[in-house]
Amino acid sequence: MNTSVRPRIVIVGAGFGGLFAARGLQCVDADITLVDQHNYHLFQPLLYQVATAGLAPSDIAWPIRGILSRQKNVTVLLDRVSDVDTTGGAVGTAERRIPFDYLVLATGARHAYFGHDDWEPHAPGLKSIDDATSIRRRVLMAFERAEMTNDGHLKTSLLNFVVVGGGPTGVELAGTIAELARRTLAADFRRIDSRSARIFLVEAGPRVLPAFSTKLSDYAQKALQKLGVEILLGQAVTHCDSTGVVVAGETIPAATVLWAAGVAASPAGAWIEAETDHAGRVVVNSDLSVKNHPNIFVIGDAAAVKDPKGAPVPGIAPAAKQQGRYVAGVIRSRIENRNAPAAFRYRHSGHLATIGRKSAVIEFPFLRLSGMLAWWVWGIAHIYFLIGVRSPMTVAINWFWQYVTYGRGARLITGERK
Amino acid sequence: MNTSVRPRIVIVGAGFGGLFAARGLQCVDADITLVDQHNYHLFQPLLYQVATAGLAPSDIAWPIRGILSRQKNVTVLLDRVSDVDTTGGAVGTAERRIPFDYLVLATGARHAYFGHDDWEPHAPGLKSIDDATSIRRRVLMAFERAEMTNDGHLKTSLLNFVVVGGGPTGVELAGTIAELARRTLAADFRRIDSRSARIFLVEAGPRVLPAFSTKLSDYAQKALQKLGVEILLGQAVTHCDSTGVVVAGETIPAATVLWAAGVAASPAGAWIEAETDHAGRVVVNSDLSVKNHPNIFVIGDAAAVKDPKGAPVPGIAPAAKQQGRYVAGVIRSRIENRNAPAAFRYRHSGHLATIGRKSAVIEFPFLRLSGMLAWWVWGIAHIYFLIGVRSPMTVAINWFWQYVTYGRGARLITGERK
Repeated sequence: MNTSVRPRIVIVGAGFGGLFAARGLQCVDADITLVDQHNYHLFQPLLYQVATAGLAPSDIAWPIRGILSRQKNVTVLLDRVSDVDTTGGAVGTAERRIPFDYLVLATGARHAYFGHDDWEPHAPGLKSIDDATSIRRRVLMAFERAEMTNDGHLKTSLLNFVVVGGGPTGVELAGTIAELARRTLAADFRRIDSRSARIFLVEAGPRVLPAFSTKLSDYAQKALQKLGVEILLGQAVTHCDSTGVVVAGETIPAATVLWAAGVAASPAGAWIEAETDHAGRVVVNSDLSVKNHPNIFVIGDAAAVKDPKGAPVPGIAPAAKQQGRYVAGVIRSRIENRNAPAAFRYRHSGHLATIGRKSAVIEFPFLRLSGMLAWWVWGIAHIYFLIGVRSPMTVAINWFWQYVTYGRGARLITGERK
Repeated sequence: MNTSVRPRIVIVGAGFGGLFAARGLQCVDADITLVDQHNYHLFQPLLYQVATAGLAPSDIAWPIRGILSRQKNVTVLLDRVSDVDTTGGAVGTAERRIPFDYLVLATGARHAYFGHDDWEPHAPGLKSIDDATSIRRRVLMAFERAEMTNDGHLKTSLLNFVVVGGGPTGVELAGTIAELARRTLAADFRRIDSRSARIFLVEAGPRVLPAFSTKLSDYAQKALQKLGVEILLGQAVTHCDSTGVVVAGETIPAATVLWAAGVAASPAGAWIEAETDHAGRVVVNSDLSVKNHPNIFVIGDAAAVKDPKGAPVPGIAPAAKQQGRYVAGVIRSRIENRNAPAAFRYRHSGHLATIGRKSAVIEFPFLRLSGMLAWWVWGIAHIYFLIGVRSPMTVAINWFWQYVTYGRGARLITGERK
């Protein structure tokens, strides 16, 4: 370890975990390097709005440099980490080696294809801005191609949308695509009726939103059905290719399949050769450090953390924020030779999910909300949490405008088409 | 011609010309097909704002279907036209043949590389949303790479930005990049000083903004120099590759070269084998129809039209709108067997260009404005003309926010990187 100069802290990943770790180290006399493969911090809870053309990418993503420009002890590096040298204490990328005294891995997760990684090109997941604009292109192009074709079978397949996974992302995607088809696009086409589109939500478990109480699950299911979403429960996708999916032996022809199931942590566990759980999350100590590596911490979706009752901490933004803040405190106490904080304790603040533009479900520890009121609470909470350099007001206005007009202004087909 | 059924009108291109032609035909009993290779109408005068991270693509582009959803006599087709059968009366794409009784070609223009089309990959032009996000990526990545490299020569080249062409687009790009480097990014980097970036504006003619009066040209030149833009006049680029450009025998090493020079009309002239001028614009009759093809019209940047004094009509949005409206009137009069309107007469409403966030030049026929007041007139006029389904208010708020904070919220690096 270098003891002569300021301690070097490397944080990998500028999601909620990494960003809150960096911010928590604001007053520490250290050289912090924050490495991310993108130049932006992403407000992931609203990513489905970009995928369904409700918001523009820049409404929910902000340059990391902009967020941290005043925090002079942080250097932001746009680069992709490829390995970690735990013995020498350095993070490696294709072009450089970044030495560290303390390392925070906040590298997040992707969706899991349960051993069928070859399904990914046919059923993209939703984790980055490029994922979202690519899904937006697929969804909008499906309607465009349906309008153009004279082939009845192709038309059916183009107007079938399958969302795999009944968690919040799957529910939000399915609900919003249903509204897009039923309302937003209803007057736009001349040869097809976009309202005839069928939206399937496939969930392998017995109910949608399994993290919520059964009452709210039921509510969400009914609200989705009211929007015209067909829900297939207790059935897993057994096959997926460019023509559609097979669910419980039945083929659903569908040009658009979106994947919102399962969680596979980033390769952070492999980099440091640490013990991982079934989803690839690194098993961490009670201070979120890694076994045998007291100076390496793993937080957020990349880590397997238990709450005080022994249940796994959910992979949601508030959990990552709490862990980022906590780890900053641990590192600070070590650098400043103070007592270490007590073991990490997750405080659950609640689960939220929206169903279309009128309804949401919210489960706070002591309160359950559903319906229109929940939608407003959800909307206001999300606008409140938009912490970017861009005006959150524009998001508010975009939403209000959409709400009044049913329009979705960001319906642009950009980038290369298939 | 088919006389038994409703006349078929095909409009190719949904820019200002095509869109105003379609709208002008609102009350005509005809089947109108509007074909465009994109699903959006683009407010091109603000495209440089997307390229320089000030606005999001969806702030300045709107789904064509959304704009025309209430005009039931229009079918919008997302397709790329490849040829026109003038004898049989049909437009061809890769997959279909669209028969017409009347054809309006409003296919626009691209930048001209003066016989050096091989320069295009190194010096992209700015005509579409994808151009703009690609330029945004290049500009932002240049700063990122400069921050990362230890190679002094490479750093110099990464911090040199060359804009070729001193018309409004070139002036706006150079001014905004200068502000990005001098103000917006000034606090963001730790290893480079973004303010040390050099921005070159190369114009082959004797002054910038050649369409404006010399007084306003001078003003614009001084305003640009104040922002730190280095202006090279009377000098053409003689060579361009991935390492930079050669201007008047001198090499400027530059990783980022942007092309805003010259105009090359779309291949519409070749499709119909019509006479074209030096820039490929179709020479049209006084009613904007094509010689020997009274039912085929060419408008906007694709056409070579003269104003009442015999001077060429400029390639700007108001000219295209006037021509679109005019052609709609001509077609309508023919369909309804009324007297044809008098020959097309261009009414010049003015030229506008901005220089950074504080200054603009406006040349109305009877009034010249420059400086801050011109900037406000420009801003209000542009917001007024935003005709989309998205709230123009969000654009106003984004601008106001940028103006107060110097932030450019859309600084996202998306898509594939070089």
